[in-house]
Amino acid sequence: MNVPQASLAKLLSPASIAIVGASDNPDKIGGRPIHYMRRHGYRGRVFPINPQRESVQGERAWRSLGDLPEVPELAIIAVAGDEAVRATDACAAMGVGAAIVIAAGFSETGAHGRILQDAMTRRARAAGMRIVGPNSQGLANFGNGAITSFSTMFLEVEPADGPVAVLSQSGGMSAMMYGLLRQRGMGVRHVHATGNEADVTVAELAEAVLDDPEVRVALLYLESIADAGPLARAAAKARERGIPLIAVKAGRSSAGARAAASHTGALASEDRAVDAFFERHAILRARDPQELARYAELALRSPLPGGERVVIVSNSGASCVLASDAAEAAGLQVPTLAQGTQRELARHLPGFATTDNPVDITAALLSNNGLFGEALPIIAGDAAADTLLVDIPVAGRGYDVAAFARDAAASARQMQRPLVVVAWQDAVARAFREEGIAVFAQEQEAMQAVSALAWLRRAWRRPPLAWPAGSAGRLPVRKGMSSEAQALGWLRDAGVAVVEHRVCGDADAAVAAWRELGGAVAVKACSADVPHKSEHGLVGLGLDDEAGIRAAVAAQRRVLDDLGVGAAGWLVARMVPALHEFAVGVNVDPVFGPVVMVGAGGKYVESLDDVAVLLPPFDEAEVLAKVVTLRIGRRLAGLRGDAPADAAALARLAVDLAKAAVAAGPGLRSIDVNPVRVRAEGQGAIAVDALIECA
Amino acid sequence: MNVPQASLAKLLSPASIAIVGASDNPDKIGGRPIHYMRRHGYRGRVFPINPQRESVQGERAWRSLGDLPEVPELAIIAVAGDEAVRATDACAAMGVGAAIVIAAGFSETGAHGRILQDAMTRRARAAGMRIVGPNSQGLANFGNGAITSFSTMFLEVEPADGPVAVLSQSGGMSAMMYGLLRQRGMGVRHVHATGNEADVTVAELAEAVLDDPEVRVALLYLESIADAGPLARAAAKARERGIPLIAVKAGRSSAGARAAASHTGALASEDRAVDAFFERHAILRARDPQELARYAELALRSPLPGGERVVIVSNSGASCVLASDAAEAAGLQVPTLAQGTQRELARHLPGFATTDNPVDITAALLSNNGLFGEALPIIAGDAAADTLLVDIPVAGRGYDVAAFARDAAASARQMQRPLVVVAWQDAVARAFREEGIAVFAQEQEAMQAVSALAWLRRAWRRPPLAWPAGSAGRLPVRKGMSSEAQALGWLRDAGVAVVEHRVCGDADAAVAAWRELGGAVAVKACSADVPHKSEHGLVGLGLDDEAGIRAAVAAQRRVLDDLGVGAAGWLVARMVPALHEFAVGVNVDPVFGPVVMVGAGGKYVESLDDVAVLLPPFDEAEVLAKVVTLRIGRRLAGLRGDAPADAAALARLAVDLAKAAVAAGPGLRSIDVNPVRVRAEGQGAIAVDALIECA
Repeated sequence: MNVPQASLAKLLSPASIAIVGASDNPDKIGGRPIHYMRRHGYRGRVFPINPQRESVQGERAWRSLGDLPEVPELAIIAVAGDEAVRATDACAAMGVGAAIVIAAGFSETGAHGRILQDAMTRRARAAGMRIVGPNSQGLANFGNGAITSFSTMFLEVEPADGPVAVLSQSGGMSAMMYGLLRQRGMGVRHVHATGNEADVTVAELAEAVLDDPEVRVALLYLESIADAGPLARAAAKARERGIPLIAVKAGRSSAGARAAASHTGALASEDRAVDAFFERHAILRARDPQELARYAELALRSPLPGGERVVIVSNSGASCVLASDAAEAAGLQVPTLAQGTQRELARHLPGFATTDNPVDITAALLSNNGLFGEALPIIAGDAAADTLLVDIPVAGRGYDVAAFARDAAASARQMQRPLVVVAWQDAVARAFREEGIAVFAQEQEAMQAVSALAWLRRAWRRPPLAWPAGSAGRLPVRKGMSSEAQALGWLRDAGVAVVEHRVCGDADAAVAAWRELGGAVAVKACSADVPHKSEHGLVGLGLDDEAGIRAAVAAQRRVLDDLGVGAAGWLVARMVPALHEFAVGVNVDPVFGPVVMVGAGGKYVESLDDVAVLLPPFDEAEVLAKVVTLRIGRRLAGLRGDAPADAAALARLAVDLAKAAVAAGPGLRSIDVNPVRVRAEGQGAIAVDALIECA
Repeated sequence: MNVPQASLAKLLSPASIAIVGASDNPDKIGGRPIHYMRRHGYRGRVFPINPQRESVQGERAWRSLGDLPEVPELAIIAVAGDEAVRATDACAAMGVGAAIVIAAGFSETGAHGRILQDAMTRRARAAGMRIVGPNSQGLANFGNGAITSFSTMFLEVEPADGPVAVLSQSGGMSAMMYGLLRQRGMGVRHVHATGNEADVTVAELAEAVLDDPEVRVALLYLESIADAGPLARAAAKARERGIPLIAVKAGRSSAGARAAASHTGALASEDRAVDAFFERHAILRARDPQELARYAELALRSPLPGGERVVIVSNSGASCVLASDAAEAAGLQVPTLAQGTQRELARHLPGFATTDNPVDITAALLSNNGLFGEALPIIAGDAAADTLLVDIPVAGRGYDVAAFARDAAASARQMQRPLVVVAWQDAVARAFREEGIAVFAQEQEAMQAVSALAWLRRAWRRPPLAWPAGSAGRLPVRKGMSSEAQALGWLRDAGVAVVEHRVCGDADAAVAAWRELGGAVAVKACSADVPHKSEHGLVGLGLDDEAGIRAAVAAQRRVLDDLGVGAAGWLVARMVPALHEFAVGVNVDPVFGPVVMVGAGGKYVESLDDVAVLLPPFDEAEVLAKVVTLRIGRRLAGLRGDAPADAAALARLAVDLAKAAVAAGPGLRSIDVNPVRVRAEGQGAIAVDALIECA
């Protein structure tokens, strides 16, 4: 959809709003937005539509849309069923810019509802009107009071305008995220719920919201991603403006994906493809709304961590241990402090304190509250800390927590690096938050947030790649599975390193091919009807004389006859001795396009959880960085007498395969290259067998 | 230590308590316990010792221990430094039962402090007095008001007697655990901190506390485990009485272990050995105090889950998705509900609700609060749920949460299985807790707790094994590394399946051995000086004629000459063709004894994270259950044409090796059997190479 961004801006800052189904009762769905708009100082024109009343909540009411003195920029459709459809149609007809359809009973109820919804959306689109919803809880912009939401959460938890934007498909999750953010003391400007997303999506709204100069962090809740483009654009804008874009994509597990399908009828991408897409576009993925709120707090209250090294300071030795455990579990390091730092600390702390990282001030803090303010600037001055974590498991009577918080804020300003606090006592947390410091209830949550935002910073710094539009030859088959020979030929033409081979019609040709190739060969019957050839004796290996080759062809022909299938010929391929077998595959995801996987080859492709997943475009360095973290990948460097293998060539093959898949266009469904034989360093990695599936 | 349990009971329920260093000021360390004892109704006799005062906090004061009218059962040593040592000695001399030494400055400060502490402890022991501490925060028993702790936390957070016992090495963690438990609304009876553990340990106190009939869950915080015996005894008692014993053992990671060493000078067991010990003794391991508190809440407020199946019900479709994701991540299942249940639900819920698991009541709950009470008993009646999880992400105005809580409590009583709630809003959590229901702030935390306590129930049900005391032959070497031949011989004599082999002095003997064994053999030089023989050409494989064997012996002799080392002979062993290579090892942990590991063999023992770890005694079924979860273990069943392997024989070998290691006694340090060649089903698993290290 190429709808100008301007019409979405209208959703966020409309000059006028009509409410179809306006209620005088602020506790009704048609009344609550009016109540909110009055309460939060909306300055645009409000037009309550109610055929039975002269006024609604003190505002003049209008009998119908047709009676309005102007065409409103935005309409809230707060009536139900057929009436909602009629009102939406009427808005479209009169030129309203956008309608927020609150009514439920559309695609979320099944096929009939989806037909209704699609038809309504088509009519709106033809008229140039955008639709939020149906089944939407509405939008809320606390920057200008344009609150079209009927959520009760804004009554439960006092709003405060601020730098966070929340965008959610689910109304419940938008309310919950808002509540969690406010619970942690953050101000929230935007709280938008898109419901069924007949038209406007979370990703599109995110892009619009990122134009608000007040927004400093954007949080998404997604259950389905119907189109990757708008989300990629929003991510690019967020990165350009230095605004963390953090998202929950629910339905990670098979049970969750089933639940999501029944909740939204979501098109399911494989979850690893979602991960790869988020990584490619520097979208930080959170597991649930609580994690989202924690990441947001760290992103708002400190710079992004510049690395993985965390220095810990606590008034409890036990917390030093737990925090170190949590750091390592989150992939962070606990580095040693400089000798100078330690000497300086020793001059201030009691003799039994620990002056290396983790620094244990000890319970002596109780009798000498000043230790905190003395020690912290010394630690903060040490360059070892990408992040400084202050862990206060016990404070209360006898502790000047407000002073600790002031000291911490001063050190944070001095460091210009993140300083975070772990505290479970509400009063302690409040004191530090009042000084603008991020607080976490548990070490593990703090370390995970630090690790996540360090990842985001790294992801932002990676220069974006762009591949020139390539063109691949016509796909080897129109539909279904190619033969091995077809796949190898297509891959070779597309620039992928494949084994040298010939396709032969009979034994004479096979013998000629063997002579031409020189050296031992494999002879395999080409038959699309028999996928696992070696199990049927259709593969002859290491053949290096004429008689052997003729015998192999004859034997395979007998097998094929017994099976009652034909052969399209014989593939004669050079033998490729190698150190390791990998598999490199491509699956074309319906939303994200080609997704590339690199893992163990041969029989052992069952190790599904030991696979590197990459979304194009990517380069060799990215492949290598991922592959070396695999169990199978660790072997590439050479273990106990093994020679180092040509990892660079494996990476190149993955990049070449990805380029071929991208260039292949929409007909491609999957490519399975297995095995890729990886030889010793400098000797290459070569695809020996492959299959291509087309749609 | 075999000290009668009775003297520890005195620590928990003393008839009289002296306070050396008693203060009139309740905010001083020597004053706070007196304040607490008065406030919490301690009915024993209290003897404040203060040479300067007639009375302390309204109690008559005594000038010295010598002036007391009786020998107190318990003394609190609230003075510092040398004075603390003198007072402790004086208590021992006069026959006090136990002393709680609060003073710091002992082993936690280094070598000098350790000498002081050891000497003081020796004198006390000689006199029959137990010591808690030094560097202890003290004990607290809210059942009888015997509170010798100076923690301020009991002022911060109002105590309430109840079924939880907290036992901690760290004073800070004991206070934090107490606070977290009270924050979740649980009553806590025991809060004990052992500090340096010169004498009394957390494990010993745990055993004593388990005799309190009020205690229903016991929580430990450990940084070091010096002796496995008392902890094993406490665990056995807990299991016998059906009391969950849940423990944090900090220092899991290498960074954490370093921090723990500097905090307590803890003896470091490998963390996997700790895991194996906890598993063997059905101690549930928690990561941190917060997780401990969550597990405790579930254990207290519901029966233990009987299995891994969880049924989810929510008023938000999004929460259904997130809860399903969390269930699967925690190793739980989300089963289908019975058709009858679904039909019955459909009669009550709106048409667009989901009636299968996860059950989405939808936001229709807002307009019809009665849906909750109608749906819940129907779902609770379905046998599919081992646990029923109610997820309420949004409730507040318009929701009768108190009624929901009553309905949930009624369903929980009906089910006799766990019913838990997820809610982040404080008011919602409070309402359910008031009805005795366990509440978690996040799906992930709830699911993890359910999974953990289901594990505990399974662990309790496993019948305890006992191995008859076996006796192994004398270890093959006194100290250092055995030769391969020595190791194989020792293992064979101990009943482990090893390859048939002969040790030969020269080529003639080797040829004779080959004839005797029949079939192809391997010939390896026996030399303790060359550990990796194959890298030096000291292994000849598949030899099946006299000339070949003589050539191999001659060639190896030349290699040994070149290396300048001798050979203790030649090992001639039958070749063992097999499907898979495993490694089975034993490491003797300083605390837990022999720990057995089963993983990939051959070169690829680098896969340290793909290893099953078991603590004897165990049986074949346990080995199999663990091995099949390994990546390498999945191959045993036979993949894509592989024959199924003799997994049972591999398990038997692991059990036999463990028995040999246990019988070997204290001189053993490690046994490394690699490879174990696992043949096809029914054909055995055979140790082909081995080394034994002795201390």
